[in-house]
Amino acid sequence: MPSPEEFPTFDDLHVPSSILQYGPSEGESALRDVVAQRLAARGLDCSAEQVLILNGSQQGIDLVAKLFIDPQSHIAVESPTYLAALQVFKFFGARFVRMPRDLGNCSAEMLAHCAFAYAIPNFQNPTGKCYSPVERDSLASACDASATPLFEDDPYWELNYESVDTSPVCARLERAPWIYQGSFSKSLAPGLRLGYLVCSKNLLRHFVNLKQAADLHSNRLSQWIVLHTLTDPERPAHLESMRERYRARRDAFQLSLRQSFGAVANWEIPRGGLFFWLTLNQQFQIDSRDLLERAIERGVAFMPGEPFFATDGDRSGTIRLNFSHASEHAANRGLKILADLICHPGATPPTHKR
Amino acid sequence: MPSPEEFPTFDDLHVPSSILQYGPSEGESALRDVVAQRLAARGLDCSAEQVLILNGSQQGIDLVAKLFIDPQSHIAVESPTYLAALQVFKFFGARFVRMPRDLGNCSAEMLAHCAFAYAIPNFQNPTGKCYSPVERDSLASACDASATPLFEDDPYWELNYESVDTSPVCARLERAPWIYQGSFSKSLAPGLRLGYLVCSKNLLRHFVNLKQAADLHSNRLSQWIVLHTLTDPERPAHLESMRERYRARRDAFQLSLRQSFGAVANWEIPRGGLFFWLTLNQQFQIDSRDLLERAIERGVAFMPGEPFFATDGDRSGTIRLNFSHASEHAANRGLKILADLICHPGATPPTHKR
Repeated sequence: MPSPEEFPTFDDLHVPSSILQYGPSEGESALRDVVAQRLAARGLDCSAEQVLILNGSQQGIDLVAKLFIDPQSHIAVESPTYLAALQVFKFFGARFVRMPRDLGNCSAEMLAHCAFAYAIPNFQNPTGKCYSPVERDSLASACDASATPLFEDDPYWELNYESVDTSPVCARLERAPWIYQGSFSKSLAPGLRLGYLVCSKNLLRHFVNLKQAADLHSNRLSQWIVLHTLTDPERPAHLESMRERYRARRDAFQLSLRQSFGAVANWEIPRGGLFFWLTLNQQFQIDSRDLLERAIERGVAFMPGEPFFATDGDRSGTIRLNFSHASEHAANRGLKILADLICHPGATPPTHKR
Repeated sequence: MPSPEEFPTFDDLHVPSSILQYGPSEGESALRDVVAQRLAARGLDCSAEQVLILNGSQQGIDLVAKLFIDPQSHIAVESPTYLAALQVFKFFGARFVRMPRDLGNCSAEMLAHCAFAYAIPNFQNPTGKCYSPVERDSLASACDASATPLFEDDPYWELNYESVDTSPVCARLERAPWIYQGSFSKSLAPGLRLGYLVCSKNLLRHFVNLKQAADLHSNRLSQWIVLHTLTDPERPAHLESMRERYRARRDAFQLSLRQSFGAVANWEIPRGGLFFWLTLNQQFQIDSRDLLERAIERGVAFMPGEPFFATDGDRSGTIRLNFSHASEHAANRGLKILADLICHPGATPPTHKR
C-alpha cells in the first residue's frame, strides 16, 4: 500500500455538479489530453483519441483479456509476475508460456503464437526489477519480429529513487500492436480507483465497446480530482518530495533487512516501486503461505511469493515485502519477527502478541 | 438521463483522506449495512454479508455473465429488454430463449435448462412496465419449480409516480438461487457510478473474487458520498419532491404525446421510471434507426427500439422516449419534430435547423 501521508486533501475541492451526469465511455476529454501529453513527453507517439480512462488499471487487465484471450490462448508472462493479472488471464482460459525471469531476454521464437506478451518493465511487481535499455530494445524487437502484441503495465514508473531509464517499451515498437496502461493508485491515491489505457489506433474502439459493457464509464468525480491534481503547478514538487520520503523508507528498510535477513535470504535493492523481493536461503526454503499464517498471529503481514508464479516449479521460498506503508520503526520490528519465525519455525510465540 | 437538477451538491463534503487508501473488495461495510437494511425493509431477507458494492449496476451484469454464462448457455430474458445486458450476455456466448413480452407469464418449462432468468420487474427498460403481484408470484414460482437462478435488475424502483407494488421478486423465492441488483444512478446521480448486488449466501464469495479481478474494489469517494446521502435525514423529503417533479414531467410528456403522436403510435402511461415506449402504427412501421439519423439532423435524439430485442422478429417500429431530462417545452417541441419526420419521411427539413 502507498503511504496515506502522500494522499491529496480535499480542502479546495469545488466539484461542479455537472460531472454527476452520465459521461463518455472513453473518459473525460481533458484528462485524456493530459494523459496523452504526458506519454508523448516520455517518447510514446500517441494522441488523446488513443486513450481510455479506466476504473483502476486492474480493469485494463480485464479488458485486454476479454479482447485477446480465447480458451487455450498462449500468453507470455514474466516469472514471477503480478498475481491478479495471472488470475484474470487464467479465468479467460489462457495458458502460460514458460519464460525467462523477465521478458527482456526473450526471443521472437518464444513469443511466436502468443496472443500477447504481458510485461511490467518498471520496478516490477513482485520483483522490483527495472529493465535495462538493452532489455527494452530486446523485448520490442521480439514483439516486432513475431508480430506479437505487447501489453505493457506501468503503475510504478513515477516512483523511481535513482536515475534510471523508465521510458515505455511500447515507444520502441515499429510494427507490433501495443497496449500501454498506467495507474494513479501509486503516485496519487488508490481509493480514487483510476487508471488509463493507451493503445494502437485501431484497437481503441474495441476497448471502448468492452468498457461500456463492463461499467459504462469511469468515475467522473475521481477523473475530476485526478485532472486537477495532475495539472496543479505544485504537483512536480510534491512528487519529488514523495520520492524522497519513499527513498528514505527504502534505505531504512534495507538496513533493517541486512540486520534481520542477512543470513536468511537474498535480495536486490529496488531502484523504484514499493517492494523488496526476497529469496530464502536453501536451508530456510518453505512454502511462505504457511509462514504467513504464523506471522499474522504475531502481527506481521507480507505477500507470499508463490502465487506470483504462472506455472509450477521453482516457486517456493519467496516473499514480497512492502516498504512504503509502515513506519521505519514498525518495519524494523516486523522484519525481526519475520526472520525469527523463519529461523525458529517450531518456537512458541510469546504470550503477549503485540 | 436523470435530470441534473436532482443531483446532490458538494457544499458540506468533508471527505476524510483515509478513504483514499485501498479498500475492501466487498465495499465499505457501513454502506453494505445500509443496503441490506433497506432491502430487508422491502421484504428481502438478507444481511450485509450478502452485499457487494459495484461501480454501477452495469458491472453486476458483467459479473453475473462471468459466473453463469458458458458458450451456448441459454438465458431467459424479457422481450424487449435492456440492450446493454443483451450485449454482455452475447459477448459471453449466451443464446436467448424466446419468451413472452415479460417473464411474469413464463412457465417452469420455459425456464428449464436456462442458466438464469434476467428480469427488470419495476418500470422496465425500455417498456416502463411494472409487474403485477400475480406476475411476481408467477415468475418466482417458475424459478423455484425449475431451480433456475433469478437475476433481478432493479434500478428504477424508487421512481414510482403512483402507488404500486415494487417489492423484489427475489423476496418471493423459496428455493431458487437469486441475484438482486440496484443502482444509485437514477435516484441519486449517474456520474457517481455506484450500484450494488445482493445474492444468495453461497454465491457472494464467487462475485467478490470476480469483482477483485475486474477492478479490485469500487470507488471509495462515491461510496462515502452515497452513504452520507442515503442516511441524510432530509433524503426522504428530497426523494419525494424528485418524484413529484418527475411525475409532472411525465404528465406533461403524455399531453404532448397525445397531441403529436395520437394518430401515429400506441403506448401506455408508465407508472414509474424514466421512459415512454411507443409502438408505431402499421402505416408508419419503419426501422427507427434510420429515423434517428434524420431526427438528430433536426436536433432531436431518442433511442431506437430495435436493439432492445434479443432475437430477430417483431422488432420494427418501436422507440423509447425519455421524459425526465428535457424541459416540458423542449420535450413538446422535440415530439412535434419527431412525429413530423415519421408522418412525412420525404419532406425537406427547414434550412434553419434549430
